[in-house]
Amino acid sequence: MSDAAVQEVEEGVGEVKLSKSQLNKLKRQQEKAAKKAASQGEKQQQQEQDEGEDVSAGKYGTYQLLQSSQLDQKKDITFVDVQDLNESLDGKDIWVRGRLHTSRIKGKTGFVVIRQQIYTVQGLLFVGPEASKQLLKFIGNVSKESIIDVHGTISKVAQPITSCSQQSVELKIKELWVVSAAEPRLPLQIEDATRPEDPSNELPTVALDSRLDNRVLDLRTPTSQAIFKVQAGICHAFRTALVNKGFIEIHTPKIISAASEGGANVFEVSYFKGSAYLAQSPQLYKQMAIAGDFGKVFTIGAVFRAEDSNTHRHMTEFVGLDLEMAFKFHYHEAMYTVANCMVEVFKYLQANLQSEIEAVGRQYKAEPFLFTEKPLVLNYWEGVKLLQENGIDQKEDEDLSTPTEKELGRLVREKYKTDFYVLDKFPLAIRPFYTMPDPDDSRWSNSYDMFMRGEEILSGAQRIHDPTLLAERAKLHQIDISKIQSYIDAFKYGCPPHAGGGIGLERVTMLFLGLKNIRLSSLFPRDPKRLTP
Amino acid sequence: MSDAAVQEVEEGVGEVKLSKSQLNKLKRQQEKAAKKAASQGEKQQQQEQDEGEDVSAGKYGTYQLLQSSQLDQKKDITFVDVQDLNESLDGKDIWVRGRLHTSRIKGKTGFVVIRQQIYTVQGLLFVGPEASKQLLKFIGNVSKESIIDVHGTISKVAQPITSCSQQSVELKIKELWVVSAAEPRLPLQIEDATRPEDPSNELPTVALDSRLDNRVLDLRTPTSQAIFKVQAGICHAFRTALVNKGFIEIHTPKIISAASEGGANVFEVSYFKGSAYLAQSPQLYKQMAIAGDFGKVFTIGAVFRAEDSNTHRHMTEFVGLDLEMAFKFHYHEAMYTVANCMVEVFKYLQANLQSEIEAVGRQYKAEPFLFTEKPLVLNYWEGVKLLQENGIDQKEDEDLSTPTEKELGRLVREKYKTDFYVLDKFPLAIRPFYTMPDPDDSRWSNSYDMFMRGEEILSGAQRIHDPTLLAERAKLHQIDISKIQSYIDAFKYGCPPHAGGGIGLERVTMLFLGLKNIRLSSLFPRDPKRLTP
Repeated sequence: MSDAAVQEVEEGVGEVKLSKSQLNKLKRQQEKAAKKAASQGEKQQQQEQDEGEDVSAGKYGTYQLLQSSQLDQKKDITFVDVQDLNESLDGKDIWVRGRLHTSRIKGKTGFVVIRQQIYTVQGLLFVGPEASKQLLKFIGNVSKESIIDVHGTISKVAQPITSCSQQSVELKIKELWVVSAAEPRLPLQIEDATRPEDPSNELPTVALDSRLDNRVLDLRTPTSQAIFKVQAGICHAFRTALVNKGFIEIHTPKIISAASEGGANVFEVSYFKGSAYLAQSPQLYKQMAIAGDFGKVFTIGAVFRAEDSNTHRHMTEFVGLDLEMAFKFHYHEAMYTVANCMVEVFKYLQANLQSEIEAVGRQYKAEPFLFTEKPLVLNYWEGVKLLQENGIDQKEDEDLSTPTEKELGRLVREKYKTDFYVLDKFPLAIRPFYTMPDPDDSRWSNSYDMFMRGEEILSGAQRIHDPTLLAERAKLHQIDISKIQSYIDAFKYGCPPHAGGGIGLERVTMLFLGLKNIRLSSLFPRDPKRLTP
Repeated sequence: MSDAAVQEVEEGVGEVKLSKSQLNKLKRQQEKAAKKAASQGEKQQQQEQDEGEDVSAGKYGTYQLLQSSQLDQKKDITFVDVQDLNESLDGKDIWVRGRLHTSRIKGKTGFVVIRQQIYTVQGLLFVGPEASKQLLKFIGNVSKESIIDVHGTISKVAQPITSCSQQSVELKIKELWVVSAAEPRLPLQIEDATRPEDPSNELPTVALDSRLDNRVLDLRTPTSQAIFKVQAGICHAFRTALVNKGFIEIHTPKIISAASEGGANVFEVSYFKGSAYLAQSPQLYKQMAIAGDFGKVFTIGAVFRAEDSNTHRHMTEFVGLDLEMAFKFHYHEAMYTVANCMVEVFKYLQANLQSEIEAVGRQYKAEPFLFTEKPLVLNYWEGVKLLQENGIDQKEDEDLSTPTEKELGRLVREKYKTDFYVLDKFPLAIRPFYTMPDPDDSRWSNSYDMFMRGEEILSGAQRIHDPTLLAERAKLHQIDISKIQSYIDAFKYGCPPHAGGGIGLERVTMLFLGLKNIRLSSLFPRDPKRLTP
């Protein structure tokens, strides 16, 4: 590497260069550590052997720290994934690397469960000519969650093992090595963190804060593993749908100057001798990309909201799936493109991630997500009318409250059998200044929201692409024109009419799966009270 | 929408709610604007008609502002893309929407070039029974870069039109409408911004700062269009390669607490009543995802460096392609996975984006990018030896300077015929505290950089997955352990050995294409001196 900047290219933690004496100290330290590690395994086996002849001698222990030494490199082991263990391997000797999920020693018998992501297999051991009591004792002392290498024989079972994902086979253990030991006391138990909340059940469950404080452990539950596979699936399907429609992926800056943003709810950043802000959305930049002739663009990235909201669905940082496209004559060209994309995403998830959806459902029960092949679009006033018909006091030109949105979602599901729908033509007064007014009726605007299970996941609109009207509207909204001049200028050199929208990835994940808190669908959530881990 | 937060879900600019009187004012304003727009087209044609009978009457003018009115919706026009215009359409009447790239009126003849991204077609008009002098005059007054709708007849040409991308046909104009007018004076000309720097040529070119100040126009050049198509291709190919190898996409937080970061070069953020920092890389979070059993992860997102470097290859914000994977016995399993991924990216680009690569090459000349099917891996000391053999004074245990890296790239290209290679086993002393030391020789570490055209694009390593050794190493590097406790704790409950790396997307784009400045490969670059647009 060539300079300080490059040196830190993928390094999140600052550091200092070492002096010669420090280097020597380091060297001594390493030699000591290596010696210690090397002697550990030997000592352990020595101790075991003192207890009598050990038929399993040399077949268990703790590896030295895996430092990729030439020695490690020569280990010629092929591992099989737990998910691939089945009856076709009956009688075969195999190696598995996984976590010790649970272990139970009873007399001369040992049962363990070996876990790999959402897959588990039962391992067992009887003391006898092929396995010593020392090996059994060793296994009994391995702490749960340790990473272990297990060598054994796959064996078909007569009765399905209902407690494991691999129900038709078990593994007769011959060797067991600890790759990386877990501390014996875990801050939470994986089984507890996987258990559904159930008032009629007295077994322990884990509270949200405790999960998040110990996120590394919480992420190991089958539920978390499945949630983030679904989330990755949403991104994949969204991108695929858009790329197939001719969209190009772009990346927009997160650090923005004071000049291009006004308003509240923006995080301020120290920027050398001045200050800057974190973008609340990529919208201005998506629009500039349209003015820059990219035609149809999308971007997936962090967006920031400095809002002191402590609800089940707000975070200060989340992932935006944003898109923007030039259209020819009507913003519905864009609106239907987005809505159809969402339908493609739902179809992809149901077709490809059914077992993950079910895994989540085992812990967090939810009604299956309903959607229609052709997305349902209601005008704002139609939504209001539906509410009014059902006795809810809602004015046509006013915003919907969160509970009213939820209720509307319920009514729409009942009437149209869908958990996904579009509400079109919002009142102009409640939309941002750059929203294109409806030219045929000044009460409305060319804007829309999309909902899943009665909660908003996308807000979008036709944008004003005319700099004069844009400036007029900004003034009317009491926005300091000088601060948004570069945004307005972007439309001075010809810009096609365009529309788009922004989707919250974590909201889509949460609502598709029917989760009750958005923090469950963020790997390391950020809210006004949480910045760690 | 339901509350302030949701209202702004995809809105980058703050705003205030409107009072009743403001709403009324707005309504009047809109009505006025609509009337004005409606009368504009009529006036123009009236004026033209005063000049004599107009056979083109009703076939040119300026559209009203496209606000998606019911009227607009009824326009039943099918447009053809410029790139699809060819001899098979000879004699057909078609519509095209594009930009007026250039126009030239000479007597009774008009030539225009219509541009759509990197594609151009010639349009022409002779005053006669099918086109009036008023239409010709109107066209002459349309400003360059305006978006226009053109209706005409496709006609095969005898001589190829070398100045356009569509060389075998031209468009005989019958109608021409302005969709969105550009201001007559452009801050830069697209032709100038596309011209190669050439000391022997006196035609104007555009300086980098002027490009970036007027980025919306600069992005319209065929060169910029191609650069960002290549960049999107890099992301696409990188993701595809990784997903095929079983990696899962994750998203890591950009806002981090003081507790998890130390060091310099970090941007500070005001976070409610406290403060926080912007992540310099997703590394800690990738590693926690590995400790959380995701096995193989990647993430694409913004990373931030508060470094006052004003070089051709540094930015304060860039896009990181980051990955991390658990391996079984040797970090080379991960290193080769990454290196092979890069080879797959290069192959994808050359197979799918050749015309874009050539388009960039027409403005910015570069040697074709060389790589080998099997990535070249040199040990650090082998690289040093190659330098020494060529008379360069480089010590085996010291860092490479930027010029030395560049020179090494030249020597490697000469000797091994590749612009891409891996330098493995860097001196331990110059790598971060969490880098795994080489257990067989304490001078070295299990770390590597990858280079393109002699510049570093990736830095990676096996990480220390043992909390005790990690804490020891941190102490030695004089890092305050209390600030990285949650990072260290992540490894206490069992963690597989793992390695990974971080790639700078803009660097890969720049170096693959042989550009000389990284700002050309960032849509809206950020550096210590630039925060706009």
